[in-house]
Amino acid sequence: MRSPVPDYLAEVLDACSADESGAPADYIPELAAADPDRFGVCLTMSDGEVYTAGDADVPFSIQSISKPFAYAIALEDAGIDDVLAHVGVEPSGEPFNQISLETDTGRPKNPMINAGAIATHSLIGSEDGTAAARERRVLDVFSAAAGRELSIDESVAESEMSTAYRNLAIANLLRGYDVLTTEPSDAVLGYVRQCSISVTTRDLAMMAATLATGGIQPNTGERVFSLAATRYALSVMSTCGMYDASGEWMTRVGIPSKSGVSGGLIGSLPGQLGVATFSPRLDSRGNSVRGIELFERLSRDMGMHLMEAPSQAVSGLRGRYERVDDSRAIEVVELQGEMQFSSAEGAVRRFTDIEPGDNTVVMDLSRVHSVNDVARRVLLEVVRRLGLDGHEVVLVDPDSVLPDPDRGDGVRPRVVNSTDEV
Amino acid sequence: MRSPVPDYLAEVLDACSADESGAPADYIPELAAADPDRFGVCLTMSDGEVYTAGDADVPFSIQSISKPFAYAIALEDAGIDDVLAHVGVEPSGEPFNQISLETDTGRPKNPMINAGAIATHSLIGSEDGTAAARERRVLDVFSAAAGRELSIDESVAESEMSTAYRNLAIANLLRGYDVLTTEPSDAVLGYVRQCSISVTTRDLAMMAATLATGGIQPNTGERVFSLAATRYALSVMSTCGMYDASGEWMTRVGIPSKSGVSGGLIGSLPGQLGVATFSPRLDSRGNSVRGIELFERLSRDMGMHLMEAPSQAVSGLRGRYERVDDSRAIEVVELQGEMQFSSAEGAVRRFTDIEPGDNTVVMDLSRVHSVNDVARRVLLEVVRRLGLDGHEVVLVDPDSVLPDPDRGDGVRPRVVNSTDEV
Amino acid sequence: MRSPVPDYLAEVLDACSADESGAPADYIPELAAADPDRFGVCLTMSDGEVYTAGDADVPFSIQSISKPFAYAIALEDAGIDDVLAHVGVEPSGEPFNQISLETDTGRPKNPMINAGAIATHSLIGSEDGTAAARERRVLDVFSAAAGRELSIDESVAESEMSTAYRNLAIANLLRGYDVLTTEPSDAVLGYVRQCSISVTTRDLAMMAATLATGGIQPNTGERVFSLAATRYALSVMSTCGMYDASGEWMTRVGIPSKSGVSGGLIGSLPGQLGVATFSPRLDSRGNSVRGIELFERLSRDMGMHLMEAPSQAVSGLRGRYERVDDSRAIEVVELQGEMQFSSAEGAVRRFTDIEPGDNTVVMDLSRVHSVNDVARRVLLEVVRRLGLDGHEVVLVDPDSVLPDPDRGDGVRPRVVNSTDEV
Amino acid sequence: MRSPVPDYLAEVLDACSADESGAPADYIPELAAADPDRFGVCLTMSDGEVYTAGDADVPFSIQSISKPFAYAIALEDAGIDDVLAHVGVEPSGEPFNQISLETDTGRPKNPMINAGAIATHSLIGSEDGTAAARERRVLDVFSAAAGRELSIDESVAESEMSTAYRNLAIANLLRGYDVLTTEPSDAVLGYVRQCSISVTTRDLAMMAATLATGGIQPNTGERVFSLAATRYALSVMSTCGMYDASGEWMTRVGIPSKSGVSGGLIGSLPGQLGVATFSPRLDSRGNSVRGIELFERLSRDMGMHLMEAPSQAVSGLRGRYERVDDSRAIEVVELQGEMQFSSAEGAVRRFTDIEPGDNTVVMDLSRVHSVNDVARRVLLEVVRRLGLDGHEVVLVDPDSVLPDPDRGDGVRPRVVNSTDEV
Repeated sequence: MRSPVPDYLAEVLDACSADESGAPADYIPELAAADPDRFGVCLTMSDGEVYTAGDADVPFSIQSISKPFAYAIALEDAGIDDVLAHVGVEPSGEPFNQISLETDTGRPKNPMINAGAIATHSLIGSEDGTAAARERRVLDVFSAAAGRELSIDESVAESEMSTAYRNLAIANLLRGYDVLTTEPSDAVLGYVRQCSISVTTRDLAMMAATLATGGIQPNTGERVFSLAATRYALSVMSTCGMYDASGEWMTRVGIPSKSGVSGGLIGSLPGQLGVATFSPRLDSRGNSVRGIELFERLSRDMGMHLMEAPSQAVSGLRGRYERVDDSRAIEVVELQGEMQFSSAEGAVRRFTDIEPGDNTVVMDLSRVHSVNDVARRVLLEVVRRLGLDGHEVVLVDPDSVLPDPDRGDGVRPRVVNSTDEV
Repeated sequence: MRSPVPDYLAEVLDACSADESGAPADYIPELAAADPDRFGVCLTMSDGEVYTAGDADVPFSIQSISKPFAYAIALEDAGIDDVLAHVGVEPSGEPFNQISLETDTGRPKNPMINAGAIATHSLIGSEDGTAAARERRVLDVFSAAAGRELSIDESVAESEMSTAYRNLAIANLLRGYDVLTTEPSDAVLGYVRQCSISVTTRDLAMMAATLATGGIQPNTGERVFSLAATRYALSVMSTCGMYDASGEWMTRVGIPSKSGVSGGLIGSLPGQLGVATFSPRLDSRGNSVRGIELFERLSRDMGMHLMEAPSQAVSGLRGRYERVDDSRAIEVVELQGEMQFSSAEGAVRRFTDIEPGDNTVVMDLSRVHSVNDVARRVLLEVVRRLGLDGHEVVLVDPDSVLPDPDRGDGVRPRVVNSTDEV
Repeated sequence: MRSPVPDYLAEVLDACSADESGAPADYIPELAAADPDRFGVCLTMSDGEVYTAGDADVPFSIQSISKPFAYAIALEDAGIDDVLAHVGVEPSGEPFNQISLETDTGRPKNPMINAGAIATHSLIGSEDGTAAARERRVLDVFSAAAGRELSIDESVAESEMSTAYRNLAIANLLRGYDVLTTEPSDAVLGYVRQCSISVTTRDLAMMAATLATGGIQPNTGERVFSLAATRYALSVMSTCGMYDASGEWMTRVGIPSKSGVSGGLIGSLPGQLGVATFSPRLDSRGNSVRGIELFERLSRDMGMHLMEAPSQAVSGLRGRYERVDDSRAIEVVELQGEMQFSSAEGAVRRFTDIEPGDNTVVMDLSRVHSVNDVARRVLLEVVRRLGLDGHEVVLVDPDSVLPDPDRGDGVRPRVVNSTDEV
Repeated sequence: MRSPVPDYLAEVLDACSADESGAPADYIPELAAADPDRFGVCLTMSDGEVYTAGDADVPFSIQSISKPFAYAIALEDAGIDDVLAHVGVEPSGEPFNQISLETDTGRPKNPMINAGAIATHSLIGSEDGTAAARERRVLDVFSAAAGRELSIDESVAESEMSTAYRNLAIANLLRGYDVLTTEPSDAVLGYVRQCSISVTTRDLAMMAATLATGGIQPNTGERVFSLAATRYALSVMSTCGMYDASGEWMTRVGIPSKSGVSGGLIGSLPGQLGVATFSPRLDSRGNSVRGIELFERLSRDMGMHLMEAPSQAVSGLRGRYERVDDSRAIEVVELQGEMQFSSAEGAVRRFTDIEPGDNTVVMDLSRVHSVNDVARRVLLEVVRRLGLDGHEVVLVDPDSVLPDPDRGDGVRPRVVNSTDEV
């Protein structure tokens, strides 16, 4: 059977192709020369499954879509506190072409505006690193996220530098405030080259999926960004990613997103997927006309709104049954899926009506994919309390999702690979 | 076994009690008289399970926490387009005490600032409704969400009205722009009374959980708000709920929230839970000092950040096995949990490697809780494609989670209650 | 011979009548009903001479032109420090429809914007005066300046109050900041009634001339405003009188001015004249189209720009001659005109080349109109120094423009009425 | 007799020396090294008379005081319209450290802020002139106004360039808006060098006096600036010269002024004088503490407020008398001083009561210093009307202040050198 997903994507692409309004950016010849009819979309699931339709493999410069990824790198390299000291995380509430610095400190309001992105770029790499080192670092990480070797489109970079007055203004301003400590022209050059990295829609969807998974590249399994960096990058995408229309975007689309002037648009739905579109026709705000429409359809048709997550209350529990074995009463509680607070809490409830006694209680983790910190603490606390109530506790954990199950008092439950071994 | 969750809440509450900074609001005697040491927290899971610690049942006036709920009512009553025509959804980027109207139209930037909340209140009920009717409507819906009959604290309402100069200013301004069509003093009185509704921390957590579930009150099962209204309310909470610190809140806490000057603070984590705290000590921005700290701990310790959702790629699939029955080859694919796009997509993949043939393919939905629109379309498309490939398809759907399974061509698969009936 | 001045005014009026652009204000019926073709101008010299052309005697409501005069009254009644504590003197740099309060204090930026004018009105009269007392005081002073009994156009006042939402907003806002201490609705009513005083172009020119003379009504000789109040009123007219076009007005016209929405426009050229025009056709900023053009012509054609004052260096000296009388050498220095620092300084120089000796030195003040404080000090110092040099000094001062000429050491020069008496 | 003026200046200087608050600017070593106790003042009358006290001959860099003079040059070189197209004339209403560009066009709000001054500098000289040519032009004109050859303090210029990030930011921003058409770094270098011109307090007072006289250097009599350029320069000094305290300055001091970060402060009182002070101790706004106090004293003690000009209504008329000569009735009207509209209007009145007849009417201009355009037109119209009334008109005009007295109809009155010749 052929999957219906690519067919759906093709249909949506076709439906959005009707809109011929907008035009490619024209401030440099390289962007103005883009074929306005190119249109592609790519969906990458959090386990690396990829669906595409249209021109998903046409290369273009990444432009502002580089911002959230560069921000995540800076967070790793300079640390969250240092980055926050230089760049804020508040939406500016101002039109996209405002410089938006904080009044007294000159700190850019957020890393999604140019001022913030320039300051962010300068924080990449080691503190006294060279411009070349920063460029190398950006290329390496972007390539790791995309899953292939990326490179800079030199003609785009050169062309952008020749009219980069506004960015030079911003960098000098930041330098005047000591927000920037590198030479202003170095910072702008580095930032412009970062924006000139050549990508495809497929690359961007994979990079977006890498954010959606909390930083792990779905195909290679490599941790490209820390969880904390991912959380910050997605957060600023959600509040500041679409400039002064970010609030409207959140209500209507509800996918943390970032657009670029070359016609790209990405979205990351945490835990679910990354999505990217490419269509160079821009509206008056500099966003891709067809990209916006396609995102709205994806959100509406596919229920991808961040605020519409399905209820997870009972998702952690698979079942509970009692077994009498050699005249022993054995209580088996089967857990499943990803264990985090909500799912663990739901599971815990099935243990709470086990009265004190000397039964054997089996916590079957064989269908659990992962256990995060809080879920681990909760489950071990359950083990400890059942023990205090007099029960023997056995963990079925063939994949060691709950390794080293110390209850906190040095006592460890018995761990087996199968309920048959209980 | 006793659940560790209440113990955890009590521990967190205790840890946050050390901070004695801040003071109750003092602009009216009723708020100034609040006992500064009151401190409560309540967690309500999306299925209605409630955990509390501390003073979760002390009453206080709801104040600004009424805003997202009143907004959801207005969306229902006046319709999304009409509400958007009167109140925007963009963060203001301005300090909390700014009026923040759009330059030309006078439209308040968002419904979480006072100007937006006053305009929002006036949109509640029928277009030519009375002030009394608006008040009745607010009380009814708030009560339905809280799960008990709420009422107005008359002494708070009266006291607030006597110093409501700034709100009267705003209302007159809005009236001058025709954003408000009711009498300014009526709108302010209605808004002030809305803010004076008496609630407890327990009430607020239940109301927050009602937003988290997409509008369905977890205990009563009543649909209090439409899904669309919930989505809008949660979205504006996420981008505008903490005034000009909303961006920082999203990065650090990542729970759509709203605070009130009486010391309350709520958060709604979509699909998971509602949370509320109460502590009257406010910081310079008018937010509860201990409430903020408690939310930060919940987010950090319990992994409740919106951007840290666990991967849901394979969560829809329980398993797949082949059964030979009366020499017939029967393929059984077991699905589970909430079916939305990501989980459905994961499940679909198990069908895609079924080669064309004349087998019986069983889609076992007996462990599926719900199927949203997109998942329904995807699953029915799978049924249709398997049929076109020559297979007989049987649905096991004892709870009718996929009712009326028309493939789109009039053909319906056989539906049974158990795999035994295949 | 007939004066050419009225003919010139008539010519200018005629030339400006061609422009039929703009329309009367239409937010209340009383203003919308104004005959758009009415056009009048009046020039009142600082000694009370009046020239008019066109509809100089058509009545209309004074509107915002009341602001500088009410400001002058408040300065007198509450004192400069108290008024400055409530209303600033800085141009707002914002469009005319902004509220323009200082961020922290809520102090209106200046008294020419509505917020400042409402606060200013509330400072008129005694601190605990009634609204009626404030109205009486405004009418009395305005009447004294106009030189006839003025009254309120009740239908205008009533109509304005019915749509005064924005002003009510402002007043409530000011009350919230404690900038206003009266009831907001009282302050707005008083301000609206102040704006509804009925005047003619002739009245306004006389009122403007009263400011130009430093506060003395040219015809009655009554001191209507103190010199300090006049200085402040003219200063704010020069920097804030034309809202956000005040800078352009100063460069192009250079006459401290104020316009009103009913079509009036006044200007005061210190020391020279008052001018007023009336034409209800307004431009998009709410200023009289023809009024502006007429002012530009007056400034350009008649050299009335504040920054083009003629050189006054030698204007104080009429002449100096030596007379030999009874074998005595008598030096006579004739002064003339208004004695202020520049003219006095010029005059002093004629005394500085008088060598020490025992001559008689005559300071002839018979053609001097007035002597201000600094000139008095300078001239008395000259008298003292001449005395120390050995000369006898005689003042010719028939009009006592330098009364009580104490040199500072108790010695007084001889004072006579004519040089013949020396 | 010794003039009391220098003694007065010395007294004022001494009184203001007590205030030791403030400190020299410290952003470059050259300014930080200034002796904080230096204090000088210079008063230059509109006819070139100079009074000084204190350190009037200590050199320092002109800094922002160069702005109004450079603006006057640009107005001459590029024309008023072109300059206005690039730089506005409105006060910004913003703190001194704001960039203050117009939202859409990027046009700096006024030429007294850095953005405006940089744009202004680039408009000096011919359109395609070199940076060197602009520098030469600035030095030439400044020298002509100061009355001596000025030069650039190279160490100040060099030091300023090394930290000119903010100005480079501004220039790049302006270049991005096409407000600046030269290379940003060229414009900044030129502007910085303009600010580094070395002057003394004496120089500045003479330059200020050159503006006060309408552009004519008082000593050399050279027209350094056109009257129009002077009018614009003084106007923007009056509305924007003291940054966001310009309104307060106008009310309290009332002298069009400009301050510089090196401690200089100038004022130009049109028609009267130029004044300059020097004291490097700056307040938090970057203005000279003692300079401000001295200006306030000068304004208060010496009545130098722009809005306190003495009445000029009768200043144009010296007297009128009748003479019977050879049985002819001869009416003599003596005029005096500077003839502009107000003085001419006052004089005209003495002619208006001359009944038609065939007398000889003498207009005695022998004590008139100058006649501006409007006064010339008025006086010639008087001559024409008297002629039409039947009178013979004779002008006494020994200095040809009313040359070529064509009445407009080809008829010219008889002109003589003395009333004796009538």
